[in-house]
Amino acid sequence: MKLRVRSDLVYDFPKDTQAIFAIQVACSPGQVILSESLALSPDTPVIQDRADSHGERRFRAALEGQVRVVYEATIENSTPRILSPGSRLQSWLELPPPVLEFLLPSRYCPSDKFMSFAHREFGHLAPESRQVLAVLDWVCNHVDYVPGASHAGTTAENTFVDRAGICRDFTHLGISICRALNVPSRAVSAYAWQLDPPDFHAVFEVYLDGAWWLVDATRLVPVENLVRIAIGRDAADIAFLTTSGSCECISQSVSVEQVSA
Amino acid sequence: MKLRVRSDLVYDFPKDTQAIFAIQVACSPGQVILSESLALSPDTPVIQDRADSHGERRFRAALEGQVRVVYEATIENSTPRILSPGSRLQSWLELPPPVLEFLLPSRYCPSDKFMSFAHREFGHLAPESRQVLAVLDWVCNHVDYVPGASHAGTTAENTFVDRAGICRDFTHLGISICRALNVPSRAVSAYAWQLDPPDFHAVFEVYLDGAWWLVDATRLVPVENLVRIAIGRDAADIAFLTTSGSCECISQSVSVEQVSA
Amino acid sequence: MKLRVRSDLVYDFPKDTQAIFAIQVACSPGQVILSESLALSPDTPVIQDRADSHGERRFRAALEGQVRVVYEATIENSTPRILSPGSRLQSWLELPPPVLEFLLPSRYCPSDKFMSFAHREFGHLAPESRQVLAVLDWVCNHVDYVPGASHAGTTAENTFVDRAGICRDFTHLGISICRALNVPSRAVSAYAWQLDPPDFHAVFEVYLDGAWWLVDATRLVPVENLVRIAIGRDAADIAFLTTSGSCECISQSVSVEQVSA
Amino acid sequence: MKLRVRSDLVYDFPKDTQAIFAIQVACSPGQVILSESLALSPDTPVIQDRADSHGERRFRAALEGQVRVVYEATIENSTPRILSPGSRLQSWLELPPPVLEFLLPSRYCPSDKFMSFAHREFGHLAPESRQVLAVLDWVCNHVDYVPGASHAGTTAENTFVDRAGICRDFTHLGISICRALNVPSRAVSAYAWQLDPPDFHAVFEVYLDGAWWLVDATRLVPVENLVRIAIGRDAADIAFLTTSGSCECISQSVSVEQVSA
Repeated sequence: MKLRVRSDLVYDFPKDTQAIFAIQVACSPGQVILSESLALSPDTPVIQDRADSHGERRFRAALEGQVRVVYEATIENSTPRILSPGSRLQSWLELPPPVLEFLLPSRYCPSDKFMSFAHREFGHLAPESRQVLAVLDWVCNHVDYVPGASHAGTTAENTFVDRAGICRDFTHLGISICRALNVPSRAVSAYAWQLDPPDFHAVFEVYLDGAWWLVDATRLVPVENLVRIAIGRDAADIAFLTTSGSCECISQSVSVEQVSA
Repeated sequence: MKLRVRSDLVYDFPKDTQAIFAIQVACSPGQVILSESLALSPDTPVIQDRADSHGERRFRAALEGQVRVVYEATIENSTPRILSPGSRLQSWLELPPPVLEFLLPSRYCPSDKFMSFAHREFGHLAPESRQVLAVLDWVCNHVDYVPGASHAGTTAENTFVDRAGICRDFTHLGISICRALNVPSRAVSAYAWQLDPPDFHAVFEVYLDGAWWLVDATRLVPVENLVRIAIGRDAADIAFLTTSGSCECISQSVSVEQVSA
Repeated sequence: MKLRVRSDLVYDFPKDTQAIFAIQVACSPGQVILSESLALSPDTPVIQDRADSHGERRFRAALEGQVRVVYEATIENSTPRILSPGSRLQSWLELPPPVLEFLLPSRYCPSDKFMSFAHREFGHLAPESRQVLAVLDWVCNHVDYVPGASHAGTTAENTFVDRAGICRDFTHLGISICRALNVPSRAVSAYAWQLDPPDFHAVFEVYLDGAWWLVDATRLVPVENLVRIAIGRDAADIAFLTTSGSCECISQSVSVEQVSA
Repeated sequence: MKLRVRSDLVYDFPKDTQAIFAIQVACSPGQVILSESLALSPDTPVIQDRADSHGERRFRAALEGQVRVVYEATIENSTPRILSPGSRLQSWLELPPPVLEFLLPSRYCPSDKFMSFAHREFGHLAPESRQVLAVLDWVCNHVDYVPGASHAGTTAENTFVDRAGICRDFTHLGISICRALNVPSRAVSAYAWQLDPPDFHAVFEVYLDGAWWLVDATRLVPVENLVRIAIGRDAADIAFLTTSGSCECISQSVSVEQVSA
């Protein structure tokens, strides 16, 4: 599937501010960048970090005043493998070392708190993808998608009590429960075709049978509609914009459309 | 049933400290105090507050150094009415004004956070005691009694995530869910016959059909074994000892025994 | 000073909802109600609770659909005594029993957490009003008034870290520190002349030398401009509207003006 | 300085449990391992992860029943450079990409919450090591070292309010404030000569002028007495033992002694 993604961000930086942007499409397998462009106005030098081992690309800039950032890319997205029952959960001893950190609790995903719940609710299932699929069902069925129900500091614990949130909250809760079940889990930001209203989307990946599998506890769009951007432990790591000081969002729009072959 | 209760508390107050004790048996209907005694050593003057409208009695003292407080009482406990299906939940408009405060969130019972969960889980039940009985079942079945799993700051939100705690945690979670269902609920401290190990117990009361009903989400002892002490919104209000400064527990023992007629 | 206060609230109740309003001027000493009116449209029966021992008046109603509540009152406000250095902090043993609950931690005012800070920062001052005045200075100097910086769940702990909030946050932090210093403290909602923008205001009272003294950590208006409404442990108790279910604010306006003699 | 470190850990694993140990001395510059040994009894195969880019070494094992782990090493520790005024804080644009993650908030170090406090308290200082030194002074002067004052879930926010904690709490608060000042900061576990009582120690490193500098907000021992083990964002990453399920500590001892040359 060929998709064109675009983000158009206008922010005001009241004073000289350092910023890290994670809005560029990742160099992941199955996601080929056919063309892309990045423009800042006023024109500003950026430091483009090379893709790391996850394929993530970020750029950094020092910004002041009102700045517009427009990023566009056309990508060819091959159909991803969809997680289905039968993928085996690996022992910690079998996992590649870089995967291990995604077993640990993190800022918004205090998975240690969910050990008892996870084992009570999902412990009877075999240690394989059936557990993850059950977690996705559980989160989707027990949490309402309610814009405004959460805020920047909302953790998976809060969402577990509130039973309401947006994509990042669904993702944090899903990750927390999966990690409590010893399934390595990491947050992924993405462009999402057919997401309504269009916005950056937050989903996650679980590591089973030697591979990362993309899943979405919100079920707002099929995973084949997703174009990956950044990867991290939770929303603290994959924010599309991280700044050294406060700034104000003037406008922000994200769009994804299918390009006919 | 005739019961003898006794608490023997030894505390060290490193400097002159003001203290409020809530260890005396309440003057509640159905709970007749046949005899009682209170002794502090070294002998110290106390201010005995008269029983308030709930029948609670507290005493205050200024303490310094190592102090021993021994309280004993023999009471005749009539069999309480046990909450059963069919007691009606009253509208807020029908409630006596002093009951209203027990609808509100409090320190350890942030009932406002549980609105969504309570209605998802119990909203299909008729607004009567069946809801409360279902909440008691739910708490008892989903939380493990684990000494040491909680601490002085643990709230019902924490317990809801952790799924483990002691009597005060079961009580806070039960109260929070009941209040979220618009059932007035208040915390009660009690002496409990046959509680093992013996200690002060924390249970709660719900207001239905014009009366307060004593319930216990831990199900450690039958409610007829309970002798009420203090009443409040949550553990912050019914602590057996509240002090103006820090103090150290040297020893503490509580006992309840049945007295043959 | 003669003041006319008015609140005009329009809310939508999607289904039959029970509501408690605390918008009527309290029957407090020094605050004489010359005239007042209350109107609901559509016309709805209300239960008017009599003034309690604090002088608070609340009314209850069952509401459905869009409802407008308009309350107006003209009051004669005598100049309150202003807290100044020299008022003595009373021992817990000297306090009237109804004052004792305002020493305890509450939902938004977990004063037990502030014991160490309070004694480090203010412990060198004599136990009298100088301590309270120093707390007011500290809060005013260390917290920024920033609308939007807090939310409905923000506690004094959060505000102490964030160093930003609105009137209820200043009040919660002030109360928490005062209680940690053993000064009984309670939250007060008020109409406030010259508050800009006009809104319900949240301030607090401290108990010293046998009397409650009104104070305002925000210093947005002088305390003589305040007309008291409700009293409680914190914002959970003095909300102008408490409901049994969710509702939507359509519009809300509060005004206070001086009436020439 | 030649030091011999030893840890002797006995744990009971009630069922087959996967474990990651971070108790081995890191391969860091200035810290030369002269000899070392690791023994598990009963004898159990371990997977030894190679030192990563930080020099960290961890090993993994599947354990069941009572297991004793004894690690010993003799190391030659060269005198580290001590942070002093004048080291420059680098712009985000100058930082090596692997350093960037240590600017972000993490589980126990929610640095985003400390932005306002950090700038109010330390913003007047030049953006260099003087800021970090002032943060260390502040933490040491405003927090009491009190074993038992904190628990496994305590965050820097909690410690900031409580003003009491142990080494990990001092470290989390120091890291949080430094990150809020845009100083990359990471947690370090260490063996500490002359620490009393002997135990694993938690300290941190700040990145200034192109290098990581070891600092200790507790000031319990000089930094030249430290032998580094693991590095991470906070205590969640550097635990000496992370397990897939619950286990019980039977005994645990850590010792460090100077070896005469």
